[in-house]
Amino acid sequence: MHMKVILAGTAMALALPAAAQETQTVGVSIPAATHGWAGGMNYFAQEAVDRLEEVYPQLDFVLATAGDAAEQVSDIEDMLATRNIDALVVLPFESDPLTGPVAAVADSGAWVTVVDRGLSQEGIEDLYVAGDNPGFGRVSGEFMTSQMPDGGDIVVLRGIPTTIDNERVEGFEEAIDGSGINVLAMEHGNWNRDDSFTVMQDFLSRYPNIDAVWASDDDMAIGVLAAIEAAGRDDVQFVLGGAGMKEMIARTRDGDPMIPANVTYPPAMIGTAIELTAVGLTSSAPVSGEFTIGSVLITPDNAEDYYFPDSPF
Amino acid sequence: MHMKVILAGTAMALALPAAAQETQTVGVSIPAATHGWAGGMNYFAQEAVDRLEEVYPQLDFVLATAGDAAEQVSDIEDMLATRNIDALVVLPFESDPLTGPVAAVADSGAWVTVVDRGLSQEGIEDLYVAGDNPGFGRVSGEFMTSQMPDGGDIVVLRGIPTTIDNERVEGFEEAIDGSGINVLAMEHGNWNRDDSFTVMQDFLSRYPNIDAVWASDDDMAIGVLAAIEAAGRDDVQFVLGGAGMKEMIARTRDGDPMIPANVTYPPAMIGTAIELTAVGLTSSAPVSGEFTIGSVLITPDNAEDYYFPDSPF
Repeated sequence: MHMKVILAGTAMALALPAAAQETQTVGVSIPAATHGWAGGMNYFAQEAVDRLEEVYPQLDFVLATAGDAAEQVSDIEDMLATRNIDALVVLPFESDPLTGPVAAVADSGAWVTVVDRGLSQEGIEDLYVAGDNPGFGRVSGEFMTSQMPDGGDIVVLRGIPTTIDNERVEGFEEAIDGSGINVLAMEHGNWNRDDSFTVMQDFLSRYPNIDAVWASDDDMAIGVLAAIEAAGRDDVQFVLGGAGMKEMIARTRDGDPMIPANVTYPPAMIGTAIELTAVGLTSSAPVSGEFTIGSVLITPDNAEDYYFPDSPF
Repeated sequence: MHMKVILAGTAMALALPAAAQETQTVGVSIPAATHGWAGGMNYFAQEAVDRLEEVYPQLDFVLATAGDAAEQVSDIEDMLATRNIDALVVLPFESDPLTGPVAAVADSGAWVTVVDRGLSQEGIEDLYVAGDNPGFGRVSGEFMTSQMPDGGDIVVLRGIPTTIDNERVEGFEEAIDGSGINVLAMEHGNWNRDDSFTVMQDFLSRYPNIDAVWASDDDMAIGVLAAIEAAGRDDVQFVLGGAGMKEMIARTRDGDPMIPANVTYPPAMIGTAIELTAVGLTSSAPVSGEFTIGSVLITPDNAEDYYFPDSPF
């Protein structure tokens, strides 16, 4: 035991060649999806696994995608029982049903990285990687004020009523406070194109002049744009969505004046979580803790860095 | 320009072999040191650079260590002017003098990662990596309560009066609240062995029975242990230091009952910052944001993972 200890420490400190190191297995468990944000998340998880298998020959990866919470529980139990995983990276379908199975992985001594959606009990995971909802709202609000230095009239579409949505809207409101920007109305478009089309139709019928729209999400922005086009209105100068859907990034990159910017809430954060887990297994760098992935403003200047042609999102 | 954009995106998405990618240069600027926490930080910075130069052949690293803030400013200006760095990882000597030069690096379009000590102006860095001071105190307090389930009398040594010290002590006090642990006295040992020896001498003369000491730092713990030994007292059951000095980790690993645990505030966080910067340059994983490195409890069970024989700290 003591001998093993010393060798393990020395191997890390001296960075022995990969061949001399023991193989370690990393399980990655995520919700399945073929489109939307979750589709992007699947794409970036696979990309990270493919890349890291080349970078770190001493790491094996097991990637499982689940159609519902019960399947995800079964995937994780299987990784623990038959693959003897050294680390788990998990984006939980739902918090409650996943908490026990992930705690069992932690109890086995394996490393646990939780992404985006927290578990129902604190202190299970070693590393938590999540987006920045207040920052998402703040960056969006700062862009609005930069585009309307003399103020203006806007409408806002909110997501499904959740803590996430509240944090985003509070961040936005703080950022536009005192800027002269007047929010005519704010309604829930539920992160849904059709709902947002209906909400925007209503806004357009109620307000003869709207300078800009904070759609706060790219799916909602698409619904909003369709409503504006259907109404034949030309008073709306621009629509600010968010989350970085590739069709919208392309429009920003190509200089579409209606889509001058985007704000990230990147599905690629799953890749960051997998990368950090690999760093923790292969180096002496500490990766316990909490990583809040910042929401970044995308403009025509940097849009190319956020356009991933092969991603479904 | 458009062509370049598409190629860059494709290269990332397809993970072309390293040879096909352009070389990028990462500057690392840190305070020099030969011992203590900063000495450990220098060791882990060099280790990360050595490791990453092998892992990522397409990255070049320039590591500069500065004896004072003026030298660090000059190092960074030189990296920008003559090395054309694509990214900077900086642990600022002091916040004020470094803020302008680091902002100039950000303005050049280079990536900026700031470690441990913030700049005087918000929003300059892309990534901020820092320790968790409230968590350091909380984990320390939780260990105390786990060791003294029926309560007990302790004394506490604090660091130099700073925000850092206040956050740690508040985290500790919250964790022991209601546990039956009674803090007899709390004085500043200023993260210094000699000061802590004197403070502990005074505590020992004032209190005939002390069950345990929260020294809150390994240098202070060494001063405290010397005072206990000089006084020939055997009432003190254990001393909890912190920050993970290797001599203290070894005592925990070897089962010394006076040093049953440690709490990390790892100088190796500089390695995490360099690793994440490399991930940002070489992959599509987003690494903007704020990474709070957790403070972890070290016990005989996991001490081997935190003992680095070649580090000076």
